[in-house]
Amino acid sequence: MYSSFEFHLPTKIHFGLNKIEQLDQQLSNVNRAFIVTDKGVLNSGLVEHVTKILEKNATAYVIYDEVEPDPSVETVDKVAGVFQQEEGDALIAIGGGSPIDTAKGVRVIADNGGSIRDYAGVNLVKKSSSIPLIAIPTTSGTGSEVTIFAVFSDWEENRKVTVTSPALAPDISIVDPKMTMTAPPRITAASGFDAYAHAAETFVSRASQPASDALALSAMRTVHKYLRRAVYNGGDVEARVKMAEASLLAGMAFNQSYLGLTHAIGSALSGHAHVSHGVAIGLLLPAVIRYNSISQLDKHVEMARVFREVDLSMPEWKSIDQLIEDVTRLRNDVGLPQRLQQVGVEEDQLKAIAADSIKSGMWKFNPRQASEEEILNMLKDLF
Amino acid sequence: MYSSFEFHLPTKIHFGLNKIEQLDQQLSNVNRAFIVTDKGVLNSGLVEHVTKILEKNATAYVIYDEVEPDPSVETVDKVAGVFQQEEGDALIAIGGGSPIDTAKGVRVIADNGGSIRDYAGVNLVKKSSSIPLIAIPTTSGTGSEVTIFAVFSDWEENRKVTVTSPALAPDISIVDPKMTMTAPPRITAASGFDAYAHAAETFVSRASQPASDALALSAMRTVHKYLRRAVYNGGDVEARVKMAEASLLAGMAFNQSYLGLTHAIGSALSGHAHVSHGVAIGLLLPAVIRYNSISQLDKHVEMARVFREVDLSMPEWKSIDQLIEDVTRLRNDVGLPQRLQQVGVEEDQLKAIAADSIKSGMWKFNPRQASEEEILNMLKDLF
Repeated sequence: MYSSFEFHLPTKIHFGLNKIEQLDQQLSNVNRAFIVTDKGVLNSGLVEHVTKILEKNATAYVIYDEVEPDPSVETVDKVAGVFQQEEGDALIAIGGGSPIDTAKGVRVIADNGGSIRDYAGVNLVKKSSSIPLIAIPTTSGTGSEVTIFAVFSDWEENRKVTVTSPALAPDISIVDPKMTMTAPPRITAASGFDAYAHAAETFVSRASQPASDALALSAMRTVHKYLRRAVYNGGDVEARVKMAEASLLAGMAFNQSYLGLTHAIGSALSGHAHVSHGVAIGLLLPAVIRYNSISQLDKHVEMARVFREVDLSMPEWKSIDQLIEDVTRLRNDVGLPQRLQQVGVEEDQLKAIAADSIKSGMWKFNPRQASEEEILNMLKDLF
Repeated sequence: MYSSFEFHLPTKIHFGLNKIEQLDQQLSNVNRAFIVTDKGVLNSGLVEHVTKILEKNATAYVIYDEVEPDPSVETVDKVAGVFQQEEGDALIAIGGGSPIDTAKGVRVIADNGGSIRDYAGVNLVKKSSSIPLIAIPTTSGTGSEVTIFAVFSDWEENRKVTVTSPALAPDISIVDPKMTMTAPPRITAASGFDAYAHAAETFVSRASQPASDALALSAMRTVHKYLRRAVYNGGDVEARVKMAEASLLAGMAFNQSYLGLTHAIGSALSGHAHVSHGVAIGLLLPAVIRYNSISQLDKHVEMARVFREVDLSMPEWKSIDQLIEDVTRLRNDVGLPQRLQQVGVEEDQLKAIAADSIKSGMWKFNPRQASEEEILNMLKDLF
């Protein structure tokens, strides 16, 4: 079997320090921008970088700053209502994954009506993107600025729902590492490790392909080299630039080739036990790599080479041991939790988490087909 | 200075053996397709793969098969006239760079009027792409199926003119390695080495950036591993698939980060002495790598590692010697000419070729700023 793949990246990406200053070049047809953000981003003064430019450009704007972390479907539906009342003609999302995903959802509802719940699934969005959406990330990790995915919390069902459609891709992304400089160490660590996980999962995904492989390998190398620096010295401009780059390249990659078991279990963990996304991913990834490695020796050896030289005369499992040691050390070095107990998960939740993991859209892209029981055992080991 | 870049790839890519069979999925709004190709492609039976699908789909079509190699501006203007007479509502380009570039030019004229000469330069195309353009490459090399460039011959002035605009990017590319299986060794060698040169030039370009670097490195590795096999055994399906992949990834890369001196001189060489593009590139590349290497040691060492292990305790120039040896050997192994005399260049043309090289749009992206005199000396060495 020879590789067969699609590559489609509709978003126009502008990357660079102080790129935000060129936002005005994207506003020619915008009369009234609707800014989607959260209180944390607003209070850190980042929204002001944007509104200053809007004012200089005489572009009217409204700020919606009530997006919560892991936004719920109700939030998205509500913001869509506000957007329509306010009669905005463009969406500007400023923040991590939560505001960006919310803005993606708002646009879908504005174009198609109904509730975002109606579009949970793959390619259920009929009409696409009549309203320009500009994404401006303030963390380096989610990759949401270039992806066709948006994830929302459904607290009634204790689960995450994912909307997947090309209509979700932002038209324009302005990735300005300056906007990430104030992210605190905890957020920098969780989102940065998530970027590594995106690259690592998409690299071994069943949908992996040469272009996303190349981007993913580059992203993994960059996270390895710069994440610790960005976490422990938030003012290290080079490290912030490189982490923004890694997050972007990982997003470009998994936008084509999807993710795997870490994200499948991670979603269930967040849904049931409210563990924040990056923390859940950090907890799970080393164990999932161990689990997957025997189904894809060669690619896991390549992943090992991201961290250090590998003696290719050794059997593959030795290189893979090296890989797991290095990934675990990176996770621990940046201070992410190592056990489920530490993050408030109850033992009696594990069964439901395992059961929901195999319902995730990402489960089927994992290189090794994981049973509910195998996942439960993994979770017990990590408890 | 930290990296600052754009990434924009408007083309939706469908890659894979027998992907051509899914062409019908792209025809929903097409009533009358205008096929742009050349006699060689038509006679090899490749156009039939496409027309069979059109017929099954009850889509009317016209075939224009008179595109010549290195098509002239007059040809493009003429085909645009035929397209308008025939009242096609979509363009399907089947071939190497010549038919694909011609179709790009036809669309520009159909949307904007005038002659293609009016749009030679960067971003001079006003209206973009009201007519769907589907590119189906039959060689692995030009990358034209995903680029925003088109190159035409201006025989009045003995030069090549390049049109650069996002409006040139095909909407859809169907890269089916099956369509390249009948390419003869000479074409396979020239176009495949051109793919290597795209990757190598864009990797050290002044506009190089992390995403295109990752794609370019992957493309270089793949050409090194598979070009000889594709040239000497055209029926080697794996080699054909991998060369199609390499050409595509190199195209995705140089579409973002442009090219350099090899292509600048190559254009002038083709314009003055009618040397075919890939042959000109093969002749020049090792010398240009030698010339550029001292301005970018690190990246040239990375390029050396594409071919074989590099002893990093050695000085860089030793690795670069290795690189030039390996690139030259690849060029020679696939039977491409090594001296200008072999391909009909006259010694008294060299001065004009050097003078035109520095007028190329690609000259300024070269990592080392080359004077006319340095280029002339290089050409004399290669004579």
